[in-house]
Amino acid sequence: MALGVGVIGTGFMGKTHALAWRNVKAVLGGILEGAPTPELRMLCETPLGKAQAMADQFGFAAATDDWQALVNDPAIDVVSITTPNGLHHPMAMAAIAAGKHVWCEKPMALTLAQAEEMADAARARGVVTMVGYNYIKNPAFTHAQRLIETGAIGRVVQFRGWVDEDYQADPDLPWSWRAKLADAGLGALGDIGTHLVSMAHGVMGPIASLIADMQTIHETRPLPDGTGRGLVENEDAASVVLRFANGAQGSMVISRSAWGRKSRLGFEVHGTKGMIVFDQERMNELQLYQNDGPKAEQGFKTILTGPAHAPYGEFCPAPGHQLGFNDLKVIECAALLQGIAGKDTSHPNFDDALRIERVIHAIADSARNGGTRVHL
Amino acid sequence: MALGVGVIGTGFMGKTHALAWRNVKAVLGGILEGAPTPELRMLCETPLGKAQAMADQFGFAAATDDWQALVNDPAIDVVSITTPNGLHHPMAMAAIAAGKHVWCEKPMALTLAQAEEMADAARARGVVTMVGYNYIKNPAFTHAQRLIETGAIGRVVQFRGWVDEDYQADPDLPWSWRAKLADAGLGALGDIGTHLVSMAHGVMGPIASLIADMQTIHETRPLPDGTGRGLVENEDAASVVLRFANGAQGSMVISRSAWGRKSRLGFEVHGTKGMIVFDQERMNELQLYQNDGPKAEQGFKTILTGPAHAPYGEFCPAPGHQLGFNDLKVIECAALLQGIAGKDTSHPNFDDALRIERVIHAIADSARNGGTRVHL
Amino acid sequence: MALGVGVIGTGFMGKTHALAWRNVKAVLGGILEGAPTPELRMLCETPLGKAQAMADQFGFAAATDDWQALVNDPAIDVVSITTPNGLHHPMAMAAIAAGKHVWCEKPMALTLAQAEEMADAARARGVVTMVGYNYIKNPAFTHAQRLIETGAIGRVVQFRGWVDEDYQADPDLPWSWRAKLADAGLGALGDIGTHLVSMAHGVMGPIASLIADMQTIHETRPLPDGTGRGLVENEDAASVVLRFANGAQGSMVISRSAWGRKSRLGFEVHGTKGMIVFDQERMNELQLYQNDGPKAEQGFKTILTGPAHAPYGEFCPAPGHQLGFNDLKVIECAALLQGIAGKDTSHPNFDDALRIERVIHAIADSARNGGTRVHL
Amino acid sequence: MALGVGVIGTGFMGKTHALAWRNVKAVLGGILEGAPTPELRMLCETPLGKAQAMADQFGFAAATDDWQALVNDPAIDVVSITTPNGLHHPMAMAAIAAGKHVWCEKPMALTLAQAEEMADAARARGVVTMVGYNYIKNPAFTHAQRLIETGAIGRVVQFRGWVDEDYQADPDLPWSWRAKLADAGLGALGDIGTHLVSMAHGVMGPIASLIADMQTIHETRPLPDGTGRGLVENEDAASVVLRFANGAQGSMVISRSAWGRKSRLGFEVHGTKGMIVFDQERMNELQLYQNDGPKAEQGFKTILTGPAHAPYGEFCPAPGHQLGFNDLKVIECAALLQGIAGKDTSHPNFDDALRIERVIHAIADSARNGGTRVHL
Repeated sequence: MALGVGVIGTGFMGKTHALAWRNVKAVLGGILEGAPTPELRMLCETPLGKAQAMADQFGFAAATDDWQALVNDPAIDVVSITTPNGLHHPMAMAAIAAGKHVWCEKPMALTLAQAEEMADAARARGVVTMVGYNYIKNPAFTHAQRLIETGAIGRVVQFRGWVDEDYQADPDLPWSWRAKLADAGLGALGDIGTHLVSMAHGVMGPIASLIADMQTIHETRPLPDGTGRGLVENEDAASVVLRFANGAQGSMVISRSAWGRKSRLGFEVHGTKGMIVFDQERMNELQLYQNDGPKAEQGFKTILTGPAHAPYGEFCPAPGHQLGFNDLKVIECAALLQGIAGKDTSHPNFDDALRIERVIHAIADSARNGGTRVHL
Repeated sequence: MALGVGVIGTGFMGKTHALAWRNVKAVLGGILEGAPTPELRMLCETPLGKAQAMADQFGFAAATDDWQALVNDPAIDVVSITTPNGLHHPMAMAAIAAGKHVWCEKPMALTLAQAEEMADAARARGVVTMVGYNYIKNPAFTHAQRLIETGAIGRVVQFRGWVDEDYQADPDLPWSWRAKLADAGLGALGDIGTHLVSMAHGVMGPIASLIADMQTIHETRPLPDGTGRGLVENEDAASVVLRFANGAQGSMVISRSAWGRKSRLGFEVHGTKGMIVFDQERMNELQLYQNDGPKAEQGFKTILTGPAHAPYGEFCPAPGHQLGFNDLKVIECAALLQGIAGKDTSHPNFDDALRIERVIHAIADSARNGGTRVHL
Repeated sequence: MALGVGVIGTGFMGKTHALAWRNVKAVLGGILEGAPTPELRMLCETPLGKAQAMADQFGFAAATDDWQALVNDPAIDVVSITTPNGLHHPMAMAAIAAGKHVWCEKPMALTLAQAEEMADAARARGVVTMVGYNYIKNPAFTHAQRLIETGAIGRVVQFRGWVDEDYQADPDLPWSWRAKLADAGLGALGDIGTHLVSMAHGVMGPIASLIADMQTIHETRPLPDGTGRGLVENEDAASVVLRFANGAQGSMVISRSAWGRKSRLGFEVHGTKGMIVFDQERMNELQLYQNDGPKAEQGFKTILTGPAHAPYGEFCPAPGHQLGFNDLKVIECAALLQGIAGKDTSHPNFDDALRIERVIHAIADSARNGGTRVHL
Repeated sequence: MALGVGVIGTGFMGKTHALAWRNVKAVLGGILEGAPTPELRMLCETPLGKAQAMADQFGFAAATDDWQALVNDPAIDVVSITTPNGLHHPMAMAAIAAGKHVWCEKPMALTLAQAEEMADAARARGVVTMVGYNYIKNPAFTHAQRLIETGAIGRVVQFRGWVDEDYQADPDLPWSWRAKLADAGLGALGDIGTHLVSMAHGVMGPIASLIADMQTIHETRPLPDGTGRGLVENEDAASVVLRFANGAQGSMVISRSAWGRKSRLGFEVHGTKGMIVFDQERMNELQLYQNDGPKAEQGFKTILTGPAHAPYGEFCPAPGHQLGFNDLKVIECAALLQGIAGKDTSHPNFDDALRIERVIHAIADSARNGGTRVHL
């Protein structure tokens, strides 16, 4: 059975979606029994010439510069939305209205109200959704989840999360739409903080309440046209103290202005019997400490992912040979594909992702109110 | 000129003080011009037999089981206080009253009022004081300070601190005096959180305000006599969001129940031109990222301490050969010794340390009030 | 212009070739101007049912169980050979005879004579060849080459190479064809030592002479049919001391029985101004030490690969997001593709790879003769 | 019982000996039952003024500039020899003739014949000897030995050793006595290669044969008086392939011109059930991989040394708090002290160290003969 795929956007994320659709069956076909076969039917970009060139490069049958045409085309069964954040909401709403399944990049929307509307619409229309929290598809991460679920580190009692990059660290970087609330919404919280919340949810479950602070490190930036300096309206960094529903305490630190950090996204989970540590900058490694055996031989183990951590083996039968970032998107695509085939695999869907959005907006609310506690 | 040394206590810290007094001149004599020569005159421990045995082992001329005799002995010029926390206050007050210089282990006291009293008394009496924040004597740490002061990472904008150990991680560990507020005062905050605050102050300057949460992970512990379970009255862990006086934001996470962490005490300082990272578990290393040179060759440098980082060279003229924990105490002792000789080197003294105590009590206050902001 | 692709084999390497052919244009199309467009025309595997299933999964138009039919099919322009080592020679010779370009996995053949014959034939027939030394396609590796070429570490004086895996570490692993000289040829030297030599050549140039030792760690292994134990006829490990044509000295250590090592393939290059270190188990990192700037700030830099290290940016515009093993094969495929389009990019070709084979056979010769020096 | 200590030399090693004698009882007194109490009686240095100053700093009762007076003084029971290598032989011979116990720095002597003479003399006279191989006193190292002895990694099959520093890496470093065969003897082999051999012996037992190569990287160096360039007569680097008496194979690489390496001295031991890795630049860590438990949780453990690794606990009761280089010398001193008290603890003594010297001279012999095999 064929599945008609339409992708909107050809930038960073657009390319990863296109590659994932292109590869999901070739890589993971062995474990996708019953899933439909994606066909790359339409790619949307502007201007049209670029759309055509990229469609040719990525292997799409058709190109368009009109996203509404794409979402309404009867040949399209599922729509990838990889445009700037402000466009997620109208595109997703249109796609859902047209009865299409939706794979949307994160954050879902600029405002919580928009995200809620998207989740409601998807639920009402019964389409399958997926939001692009690719990092939690890493076999190292899902193995961490399995370890926690099976009690390998006992009762979980603390979470420490961090996500740092340096794409806004340079004070001389020109002002851009990313700095504008109306276009970008939240800053570091939306861009990367959401990923960290997806991890926190994945290993700890829901957050009950939080207190937080935010900071705009570079308050103005030079305007690209040389006419002066523009205001940075959203946060470069945030720090959060958490209480989880399971009683554990936790913290999160977030910065888009952290020199030297390129994809520093990770966490520690402290348990009563051990600890697990993960960091995306070494995404093929998982650290595990367990309080067992002689004290003289206790230590953190560095586990290299391999075929023992499914679905790594579908990419490569040899351990330690490393998956890459784009491979995570293939795993994500497979979860959506199986979801479309009727399995309960397409997570985080719009409902799950809405819970992530609630957290980052709660962080922003707490921070704007001087650090008062917000309950979720 | 001789300096009569008396040490109270022969446990973990007592031994480090004894060794430091014994070695400070032998190791650092080349850079201690004008400092007095310590003479190990009296060691106090109970019972007396143990005091005598340890005095023999450590090389003290006399032993006693009466700390008041020690602090009042005219042959004693300086008193090391390394007993359990609850005794710091009476001993320090008596030593100050007797006009003795005081080297006291941290935390200063069980309560803030006691610590204030100690600082007031020392200031009034004009004695030289030092509190045992040995980690900030590490040449790696002082080099980090120098780098920050000279602008190597630009304006500092974020601090991330952590201190984790696992000495209270085991749920089956018996109840002890450490769990009792009246005997131990604060828990993880006092034991190890204080060290982290000493580092934060050292690289960032004063903290302006904070919001915090605490957690007692193991709420009861088996009583050693097998009669049931005793209540753990103080915190195993805390998480803090900070604002510094210099405008930077920060965070601290603290746990004495973090499996696998043995002496995990460190920080990141984010600047507008780079980042510095340090961790005590690799105490001879400093990580430095600077945004200069070609992008393709930027990365975190792992600097191994050596003679370029004074006073490392007094211990060993070869770089990378490693200092150890006990060496830090020797450096601390030298700072006190030079202080006694009239230089302004004996820091953190009681005034400095009081500022550290204020922070941990502020953390506890904020946490007890649900995370409300406390101004310092 | 279309390029008819035939792939023989669907195992570990067969899948990587299939994926690379499938993706090379989609990923790297932006930098492949003038290169033909691969079309996945035929996949060969046995039995035919498996060939058909895998052709469907990987997206090949046709399937066969007859490799000679594939190499002689006029629709096929280039043949990927990913079968067990003993089949490389007949398949490559047939493909060359049919005028097809050849992408062959390493090692080229079981014997040096076969490898020479293959190189001679390819040269005579004028076809473009590529041998699967994918690790040297890593942007981290090619950046190391660039650093060395531009003098970043001065004159190179020492090479230290290692390649260790543990796929033959378990003493209880059953005997297989890998242990048989007639089927597998050399052991660890052929499987993984060749990769190390490809790196040595890449950063140091030709090897002039060597002395070596080999070792069969597990001399027999249980026969799979339970009838006793079979002899392991080839080496599990080797150690080599090298002299390079440029006057530098070096060493290589190689083991397929090194517990815990999954893809440990790396090297140090020592220069008169600095050092470079790389290891495939952290394939997105490069270590660089340079003797410049203040001593107190010297250290090894950990460089995370990113868009500054082409062609990383074609996979992902964000630094530190990580390439994976399969991505290396895509870069390799692109070099072949541009070679077919007439550029001098298809390296290591059969001539280059023959030089690698000469080295591993020289190692075996030296070792068999008690460590006598062999000149290359 | 008092033990009269005389130390010759006050440089790098002289200071470490002085500090070790000063501290051994204070630190390790709790586990030195029956050992004599060292008294720091005489320090020898030239000129006399420096001897007196250093004796005052280190706490010696007397100073001299006449080493013969020291070794013959009846108040001296044990002599520490820490002078340049060429003086070890005459001083040790005189001390032994005078019936004194000897603690000598490594290498023992400039030539093998001298070392043999020293070992013969010590054996004949019945004095206790110790040679300064401090790195093998590290609790991390002795724990590695214990793990191997108790079968934690099965049968040992491979040794990989390395020792690299950069004290001769700079091409512009002036010529010194270190470059002269007559004064320094061997180069990197004697200085640091000996340490590596001490480790190899400690974990693998005796070496049966070897093949090797050496290299003088910087063949001349500027004369300090500016009159031209002086010849470097000994090796900067060496590479060795080993066979051990137990049948295992191995390798060693050695360089004093390896930029960035400050105290890189370590090894891998491969066993049939696991692997152990150690490196002195992280001297408080031991890496252990064991093939047990689920594949998905296997990995190298990073063990931080602590009280579980005696005698760490005598320095510090808290794990992970780190020993330093000078602490190793204290442990070495204790082994000598217990040897003097009649226990079989003073190793490596002159006989043990002679076996180390034989190996480095065998390396030099093999290298001078083009890499021919030398049997030991």
